[in-house]
Amino acid sequence: MNSRIRMGLVGGGPGSFIGPVHRIAAELDGKIELVAGAFSRDRVRCAEAGRSYGIDPARAYPSIEAMLAAEALREDGIQFVTIATPNVHHLPAASAAIAAGIAVMSDKPMTATLAEARDLAAALAANPVPYGLTYTYSGYPLVREMRERIAAGAIGPVRKVVVEYNQGWLAGAVTGKQAEWRLDPAHSGEGGCIADIGVHAFHLAEFVTGLRVALINADLGTVVPGRVLDDDCQMFLRFHGGARGLLLASQVMTGEGNDLAIRVYGEDGGMRWRQENPNRVEWLRADGGMEIIRAGDPGLSPLAMRGTRLPGGHPEGLLEALANLYRDFVADLKGEGGSLVPGIEDGLRGMALVATAVAASRDARGWIDLTV
Amino acid sequence: MNSRIRMGLVGGGPGSFIGPVHRIAAELDGKIELVAGAFSRDRVRCAEAGRSYGIDPARAYPSIEAMLAAEALREDGIQFVTIATPNVHHLPAASAAIAAGIAVMSDKPMTATLAEARDLAAALAANPVPYGLTYTYSGYPLVREMRERIAAGAIGPVRKVVVEYNQGWLAGAVTGKQAEWRLDPAHSGEGGCIADIGVHAFHLAEFVTGLRVALINADLGTVVPGRVLDDDCQMFLRFHGGARGLLLASQVMTGEGNDLAIRVYGEDGGMRWRQENPNRVEWLRADGGMEIIRAGDPGLSPLAMRGTRLPGGHPEGLLEALANLYRDFVADLKGEGGSLVPGIEDGLRGMALVATAVAASRDARGWIDLTV
Amino acid sequence: MNSRIRMGLVGGGPGSFIGPVHRIAAELDGKIELVAGAFSRDRVRCAEAGRSYGIDPARAYPSIEAMLAAEALREDGIQFVTIATPNVHHLPAASAAIAAGIAVMSDKPMTATLAEARDLAAALAANPVPYGLTYTYSGYPLVREMRERIAAGAIGPVRKVVVEYNQGWLAGAVTGKQAEWRLDPAHSGEGGCIADIGVHAFHLAEFVTGLRVALINADLGTVVPGRVLDDDCQMFLRFHGGARGLLLASQVMTGEGNDLAIRVYGEDGGMRWRQENPNRVEWLRADGGMEIIRAGDPGLSPLAMRGTRLPGGHPEGLLEALANLYRDFVADLKGEGGSLVPGIEDGLRGMALVATAVAASRDARGWIDLTV
Amino acid sequence: MNSRIRMGLVGGGPGSFIGPVHRIAAELDGKIELVAGAFSRDRVRCAEAGRSYGIDPARAYPSIEAMLAAEALREDGIQFVTIATPNVHHLPAASAAIAAGIAVMSDKPMTATLAEARDLAAALAANPVPYGLTYTYSGYPLVREMRERIAAGAIGPVRKVVVEYNQGWLAGAVTGKQAEWRLDPAHSGEGGCIADIGVHAFHLAEFVTGLRVALINADLGTVVPGRVLDDDCQMFLRFHGGARGLLLASQVMTGEGNDLAIRVYGEDGGMRWRQENPNRVEWLRADGGMEIIRAGDPGLSPLAMRGTRLPGGHPEGLLEALANLYRDFVADLKGEGGSLVPGIEDGLRGMALVATAVAASRDARGWIDLTV
Repeated sequence: MNSRIRMGLVGGGPGSFIGPVHRIAAELDGKIELVAGAFSRDRVRCAEAGRSYGIDPARAYPSIEAMLAAEALREDGIQFVTIATPNVHHLPAASAAIAAGIAVMSDKPMTATLAEARDLAAALAANPVPYGLTYTYSGYPLVREMRERIAAGAIGPVRKVVVEYNQGWLAGAVTGKQAEWRLDPAHSGEGGCIADIGVHAFHLAEFVTGLRVALINADLGTVVPGRVLDDDCQMFLRFHGGARGLLLASQVMTGEGNDLAIRVYGEDGGMRWRQENPNRVEWLRADGGMEIIRAGDPGLSPLAMRGTRLPGGHPEGLLEALANLYRDFVADLKGEGGSLVPGIEDGLRGMALVATAVAASRDARGWIDLTV
Repeated sequence: MNSRIRMGLVGGGPGSFIGPVHRIAAELDGKIELVAGAFSRDRVRCAEAGRSYGIDPARAYPSIEAMLAAEALREDGIQFVTIATPNVHHLPAASAAIAAGIAVMSDKPMTATLAEARDLAAALAANPVPYGLTYTYSGYPLVREMRERIAAGAIGPVRKVVVEYNQGWLAGAVTGKQAEWRLDPAHSGEGGCIADIGVHAFHLAEFVTGLRVALINADLGTVVPGRVLDDDCQMFLRFHGGARGLLLASQVMTGEGNDLAIRVYGEDGGMRWRQENPNRVEWLRADGGMEIIRAGDPGLSPLAMRGTRLPGGHPEGLLEALANLYRDFVADLKGEGGSLVPGIEDGLRGMALVATAVAASRDARGWIDLTV
Repeated sequence: MNSRIRMGLVGGGPGSFIGPVHRIAAELDGKIELVAGAFSRDRVRCAEAGRSYGIDPARAYPSIEAMLAAEALREDGIQFVTIATPNVHHLPAASAAIAAGIAVMSDKPMTATLAEARDLAAALAANPVPYGLTYTYSGYPLVREMRERIAAGAIGPVRKVVVEYNQGWLAGAVTGKQAEWRLDPAHSGEGGCIADIGVHAFHLAEFVTGLRVALINADLGTVVPGRVLDDDCQMFLRFHGGARGLLLASQVMTGEGNDLAIRVYGEDGGMRWRQENPNRVEWLRADGGMEIIRAGDPGLSPLAMRGTRLPGGHPEGLLEALANLYRDFVADLKGEGGSLVPGIEDGLRGMALVATAVAASRDARGWIDLTV
Repeated sequence: MNSRIRMGLVGGGPGSFIGPVHRIAAELDGKIELVAGAFSRDRVRCAEAGRSYGIDPARAYPSIEAMLAAEALREDGIQFVTIATPNVHHLPAASAAIAAGIAVMSDKPMTATLAEARDLAAALAANPVPYGLTYTYSGYPLVREMRERIAAGAIGPVRKVVVEYNQGWLAGAVTGKQAEWRLDPAHSGEGGCIADIGVHAFHLAEFVTGLRVALINADLGTVVPGRVLDDDCQMFLRFHGGARGLLLASQVMTGEGNDLAIRVYGEDGGMRWRQENPNRVEWLRADGGMEIIRAGDPGLSPLAMRGTRLPGGHPEGLLEALANLYRDFVADLKGEGGSLVPGIEDGLRGMALVATAVAASRDARGWIDLTV
C-alpha cells in the first residue's frame, strides 16, 4: 500500500469517454490511484472495465452501494469516489457516498434537476464531506491567471462578458452512447445543450470575473428535428452590479469542435481566452496596447504556475487542466486550503441556470431572476 | 476632360476621417474622379478641404444645393454625389440630389430615423436615380465568396448565424469630432451603437446568408455614464424560414479595434470570417475537414476575383473593399448590371432594425416583428 | 492642370500585373497623377494600355525616348518616370530618364547585373536626380515601426536575423508572361529567385535592423528541371558587427503565396513580422512578456503613423505600403527630407548580393565578402 | 503486484525537470508503473526523490548498478529503465542495462559523442534488448499524420524541407541546473545547441519525410560571450535523392519558448506544423487550396488516432506526445510490432550530425557527407 489517495470510479464502463479521462487526470501527478470502481451494473461489462483500468478484479463492483460497503471493510479502502455517469445518476451516487462519509468528485451538471441539486446540497450540509465538481476548464492555468488579474484590477471594473461554447457534433442525426443519453431527458434531465455545455460557459463566466449573474433572458432552441431537448442556446446576462453579458452555447454549429471561449471587458481593458488554444490570454491593456500572456511566462501568478508542469512553449491541455482540479481536490481532502475546485454552490448555480433558462425560454418570459 | 465619372462629395471637411477614405476608394480604379464638393457650410473650411483634395477652388461649394445648381450648368458637371455627413444630414442631402436627377452614394445608416428612411425611399421611387449605400464590408472579396458559396449550398440550409461588431473606442470618456456627433442624438438620430455599427453587422448577416430577419429580441444598453444613446447592443434574431441568430455590437469592449466577424452554420457545414484578417474564410466542411479559403486562391468565384487586384498573398484591405462598392456603383451608373452595391431596401431594413431595437429594448418587449 | 505631380510609366502594358499596381499606389493619396506612358514598343498594345489607364491618347508613346522628348516640350510634361519593365530594361530606361533630368522610381532589382548597377550609379552621380527603388515591403507601417524600435534599443543589440520569402507559384511548369520573363536570363539577368524576391528579403533585413551584411555563404538551387536560373535560395549571413543571419527565398515552396517574414533577435528581446498579416508585429520583450504591436495603436512612432490612413482595426495592405513609398518619393521630389524610399545604395547592395550569391553558390566557395 | 510494466528511472533527482515528465508520460495510459530509481548518487537526494515519486524507499538506489543488481533478485523487479541524466551518463547507464538484459528508454542525444554512440550500438548488437530514444516530438499525432500523408503522396515527391527549433532561454547569462550542465562539455559532450535541440529538428525532418540527409553545410556559432559550446546553429541540408533542406536551431532567439516547426514541400503541395500549436497541420494542396488538418478530425490515419485520447477540440500536449512513445515502447517490450519509437539508428544519425556539424563548422569546410 503506497501513500497515494485511493479513488473509486462510478460509471466509466466500456465505451465511456470520460471514465479513462478521469483516471488519467486523477493519477497524473502521482498523488491519487484508481483502485476500485462501480463501472457498470452489468457484471460482465463491469469486470471488463476493471481489467481495462488494471485494478484488482475483486474491486470491480456492480453498484456504488456494493463498492461503498465492501471498501469500508478494507484498510486500504477508497477515500473518495468520482462520479462519471449520465446526469440522472449523479444524485443517488453522490448521496450514497455522502451517507457513507466518502468524499465526492462529480461530473457536471451536478444533478438532473434543480430540485435534485437542492436535495444534494441538503444531504451534504447534513453530512459534510469534500465535494468537487469538474468544471474542468477552470483548471486551465491561464483561466486562473485571468481570474487573478481581473481580481487584481488589470482591466478595471468589469462591464461586459461574452462567453460561448460552440460545438457541432450534434448537428446531424448522431448515434452512439455519447449522443444518445445526452439527447434523452430520462438520462440527462431537463436541459440538453444548456445542461451539457451551457453550464460550463456559465461557470467560466462567474469563475473568471468573480461576479454572479443576477438576471437572464434566454432563447433556447431545438434545431435538429425530432429532438426533445434544446441543442442551441443564447442568453442575455445581467450580473449583480450591472455588468452586461452574453452566453452562447450550441451543439449544432456544424464543424465546431470544442470552442469554449470567453472575453471580458472592464473600464480599463479586456481579456480573451479560447479553449482550443488554451495556453495564451490576449490582454487588451489600458494604454491601448495588446499583450499575449503565455503559459509559463515569467510574471504569472503563483496560482497559474501551480497548475503548470512544463516550461513555456511546451503545450499542456485538457487532461492537465482536469489534473489541476484533482490537485486541488487532494488539498481539500487533506484540509490544506487554497483549493479552487468548484463545489456545491457552483453546482446549485448551474442547475438554477438550467431550470430558469428552460422555463423562461419555453414561456418567452423575458428577463428572469436567477434564483438559486 | 477625361473619361472618368465625376463625383461630388458632401461632407468630408477638415478633420473628417471618412471623406478622404471615400476619395481614395472612389478613385482607386481610375474610373471616378472627385471634382467638386460641399465639404462644409463654413466657407473657410470648405475652401481648405477643397485644397486638400486638390480640386478646382471654384468647385468647393458651401452647400449641396449650391453645388447641384452650379454643377448642373457645366458640361463637365458632377455625375453623382457621395454623402459623408453625420446621419441627420443624409436625408436632406440625398433628397436634393435625387430631385436634381443626380445619383447618390451614401454613408450608412441611410437616415437618422425610420420615418426619414421611408421618405427617402418615396423620393427615390418618384425620381429614380442610382442609389448606393456604403455597407463597406460587403465589398470584401471573401465576404462575397461566402455569399456565393452559401447560396450554392456549400454548408447546406442555414440554421444559425452569429454576427458581431466589437469596438472599444467609446469605452472611455472620449472627445473629438468623430465621437461627439455619434453620441449626440441631434446629429446621429435615435440609435447610437446600433445605428453606427449594429446596422453593418445586420447587413452583413443578411448579405452573406441571403436570408432576411423576421423577428428580433433586443437588449440595448448604455454603459458609459452620462450617455443618452446605446453603446452596447445584443440581440437574438430569428430569420424567415426559422434560422436562429445572434447579433452583438458594442463600442465599449475596451481595447477592441474594428472586430466585425460573422459565423454561419448550415446543416452541412459552417463558415467564419473576421474583418481584421479579411483575406481568409474558414470553411468547416461537410466531411468534417476544415479548409482555409484565401484571397486569390484558384477556384474562387468570378465575383470574388472581380474585387481582387493582387495575386494571392498580397493583402488588400478596407480601402479596396470600399473601392469594390464604387466599382459596382459605376456599373449601376452605366446600367451594366451585376452590381452588389447595397441600396434602398438594405437601407430601409437597417433603419427598421434601429427603430425596432431601440423601442423594443426600452420597453423590454421581448420578441418583435422587424417590419420595414 | 491641377497641382498633382505628373508621372510617366515605362512598361505596364496589357497583361502587366505591376503596371496598374503602380498607378493605384502612386495616385492613392491624390498627390501624383499618371499622365503619360511608354507602355509597349508595340503601338497597338501601347495605345490599348493608354486607354486602360485613361490617359490622353497622344501621351501613350512607343518608347521612353519618345516619351521623354515629347513630354519635355509640354508645360505639363511628366516630372518623373516609374520603370516597371523586365529587369534588363531597367538600366537603359533609367539612364535615359537621368540623362533627361527626369526623376526615376524603379522596380527592383535595380538592373540585370552588378556591372549595370554600377553604370547606373555612375550615371546618377554625374546627373543627380531623385531616384527611388520599390522595395515595397519597407513601406509597411509596421516594418517601419520595427526599424524605429530596434534603432531605439527595444531589443538591444541585434544578434540574429532570420528573413524568408516563401512563394510557390513557380513550383510547377508555369506559363504566362509573369513567369516567362522571370525564368529567362535574357530578360531577368543573372539571378532568378535571388533577384526576384531574394533581394526583397535582403533589403528588409538591412532596412529593419539598420545593419549591413558583410559576408554570405550561399546555396542556390534550381529545383524544377529545365530551368537555367535559381528557383530556391538559402544563405547564411554575417553582418558587420558580428550578428548572424539566415536568408531563405524560394519560389518552389508549393502552395505558399507571398510569405515574406522577418524575425530579429537582440540581447534583450525579439520581433517578428509576416507580410501576409502585415498589420501586427510580435514583440518578445526583455521581461519575458510578449506584446502585439498593432497598426494604429496609440504609441506608434510618427513614422509609422505617417503611413497609416485608417484607424486601428481597418486593414491596409500592399497597395498602401507602396503608396507610402510614393509619398516619400514626393517628399524627395519636393526636397522636403524625411524620406525612407530606398535608393541607389540599396540597389547596388541588392545587385552585389545577386552577383555574389550566384557566383559563390556555383563554385561552392563558402563564405565570401559582400563587396558592393 | 498489478499487471503494469515496471520501470526504473535513472536520473530525475531533485530539481530535475525531465524526471517527473517521464513518470507522468510513462504512467499516463496505465500500462507502466515507476517502481524504482537511481535518482542521484547522493543518498539523501536519492531518497528525497524516491519519496517525491511515491515509490518504496527500499527501491531508491544510489546507482544504476545497484538498482540493476537488486531488482534482478525481485520477482517484481524492473522491466526497463528510462535514462534521464545529462548526456555523458547515457552510455554507461545504457550499457549497464543492456548488459543486464534490461530494456532501455533513453533521453536524446543518444550519447555524448559519436564514438560513444558507436560503442552503444555495438553493445546493443551484442545483447539485443528493446531500445528507445525519446525524440518526443515524433509522438505528436499530427506529426505522425504528416508522415503518413507524405508517405502516401499527399504532397508528391519531397523537394524542400525547412525545420527550425527556436528557443531563447539561453540568450542571457543563465544559472540553474538545467542551463549549467548543458553549457558544460564535461556533461553534455561536444555539441551545445546542436546536441540539445538540433538533433530534435534533424530527427523530425527525417521522421516526417522518410528521407535521409546525405550532406550538410553547417554554420554553428557561439553568441553569448564566455561559452565554449555552440548556442546557435544554421545548416543547409541535402537529402539522398536531391531534396534541399534548411535546419535552424538556436537557444539565443530571445523570447522564443519552444518553437520547433517543420515545413515540407513536394512537387504537388506542402505541409506545415508548429509544436507550440501542435494539434493542427496546414496542408497546401495540389489544387491550390489550403486545408487545416486538426487533431481528432474524421479521416485521420489509424496511426494518428492511436495517439489521440480526446475528441477533436480538446487539446493534448507534450506529455501526451511522450506518452505515445511509451505506448509504442510497451508494444516493443511485448514484441507486438507497429512501434514508431525512435531507436539506435536514429540515435547514431543524430550523433553523426553533431560530430559532423561541429567539425565542419569549426573548419569552415563547406559541404560534408553525413557519414554514420
